[in-house]
Amino acid sequence: MMIPKDKKILIVGLGLMGGSYARALTKAGYEVKCVTKDQSSIDYALKEGMISYGTTETDPVLIGGSELVIFALYPHIFLEWIRENGHLLSPGTLVTDVTGVKSAVVDEVQAMLPEGVEFIAAHPMAGREVYGVENSTDAIFRGANYIVTPTEKNTPEAIETCKELGRVLGFSRISELTPDKHDEMIAFVSQLTHCIAVALMTSNTEPHLVDYTGDSFRDLTRIARINEDMWSELFLLNRKKLVAEIDAFTGELHRMRTYLADGNTEKMKEMMRISTERRALFDKK
Amino acid sequence: MMIPKDKKILIVGLGLMGGSYARALTKAGYEVKCVTKDQSSIDYALKEGMISYGTTETDPVLIGGSELVIFALYPHIFLEWIRENGHLLSPGTLVTDVTGVKSAVVDEVQAMLPEGVEFIAAHPMAGREVYGVENSTDAIFRGANYIVTPTEKNTPEAIETCKELGRVLGFSRISELTPDKHDEMIAFVSQLTHCIAVALMTSNTEPHLVDYTGDSFRDLTRIARINEDMWSELFLLNRKKLVAEIDAFTGELHRMRTYLADGNTEKMKEMMRISTERRALFDKK
Repeated sequence: MMIPKDKKILIVGLGLMGGSYARALTKAGYEVKCVTKDQSSIDYALKEGMISYGTTETDPVLIGGSELVIFALYPHIFLEWIRENGHLLSPGTLVTDVTGVKSAVVDEVQAMLPEGVEFIAAHPMAGREVYGVENSTDAIFRGANYIVTPTEKNTPEAIETCKELGRVLGFSRISELTPDKHDEMIAFVSQLTHCIAVALMTSNTEPHLVDYTGDSFRDLTRIARINEDMWSELFLLNRKKLVAEIDAFTGELHRMRTYLADGNTEKMKEMMRISTERRALFDKK
Repeated sequence: MMIPKDKKILIVGLGLMGGSYARALTKAGYEVKCVTKDQSSIDYALKEGMISYGTTETDPVLIGGSELVIFALYPHIFLEWIRENGHLLSPGTLVTDVTGVKSAVVDEVQAMLPEGVEFIAAHPMAGREVYGVENSTDAIFRGANYIVTPTEKNTPEAIETCKELGRVLGFSRISELTPDKHDEMIAFVSQLTHCIAVALMTSNTEPHLVDYTGDSFRDLTRIARINEDMWSELFLLNRKKLVAEIDAFTGELHRMRTYLADGNTEKMKEMMRISTERRALFDKK
């Protein structure tokens, strides 16, 4: 299902992700308007030719006249926006998002929207360690995953349009998961890895270590530069699943520690062999 | 202190690291001979022009006639070799190595060598997730750390020659640590990170995860493809220090888990801020 080039697209929240969406959509020949909190972001985006129009106001005409509205906000701000302004959206409008957790957001947003406005959630699994529209680039979508997380309230047409949006943006893999499965996966693949990176950085206070790091340490801690407002919010919204993943991981690390302390070479090697086999699967992709 | 171009150099053990040394030294204009266990490695290295001569035999004339001998063997094979063949080395010979742990190796080797043969230990902090001379490349040395770990038995001349070897090989940073400090650093920066990568791969058995991984997970588990024979040996030789690092890291991760379970946003953010600040130092290097 193609998205017509005259589709009236509105991005709410022009940060790193909203800006990257704007760049990709404009390049693909769409006209993109935006609502965001800082005039400076709009000025930058206009100068860069990423958007055709932007406002810091909650303009009922602009919002009511949009057909595809993409929310690129922190989860609590997204929920707040829908609560306060959701009634401004017109029937027939398709709403989507970029939020990194789904269960805590999807049902609530779907319940708050007016009749005829459909919310189809998506998670673009892409990002950078820097923030703001000035750092936006659609290059982050190439090679990355885009996950649509429909509920039973979604129509096949909305799901297809949302997937097509992922393709237009330039994502390499488009897939579909339930909000619950998505949150389980993201707890392991993304949130746990960020917790590990942070714990690595806080567990050793030796400043001279920086002189001796190899690639492995750099790789493991690249994501230790972390936006504390966004990630603490995402962690808390997925608290139960993330705690379970931390516990499972800690159990495995403790198993390695026990084998090591006991001098149990065979068991250590067995864990390493399983690790090597599983990791090899990732290289084929 | 320059290493004369007619220095008689012998590499013992022609695997990934020995092979990479051979390539770099040959490119730099040195003649490199080698002793290794498989004739096929020698055939490959001769064909590639990486060495001028190789043998699978313990040839007393070759060994006794060498002036700089580089051991690129697993730690226990290195110790075994010195125990059995150390007497073949001639007075005035300089011996060095590539071993990833130091305390468990350096004193023992220095004690076993004949009078007049000096062992100056070094750790080239470079590697790949693949093995064998066929995968050797001196590109791994660029941007990497080379650490010399002298003891009070070493002469200033040997330390300087060893550092010069690191420069000839193409390492970007040459530094000096005691064997004890080296092992403490390596337990955190390299061994702990490998334990974490392995525990991450064994802690979740969901095969479809590979479809949803972002860069962060790939980065954290790149080193999960691990040579179990080498790494289990290195872990055990540094057991006490590695157990201490695992415990310190686990404590920090548990701290994050507690803040998360308690919904303590402020404390979570505090850990993330410290992490971000510390990690930023690494980017400046």
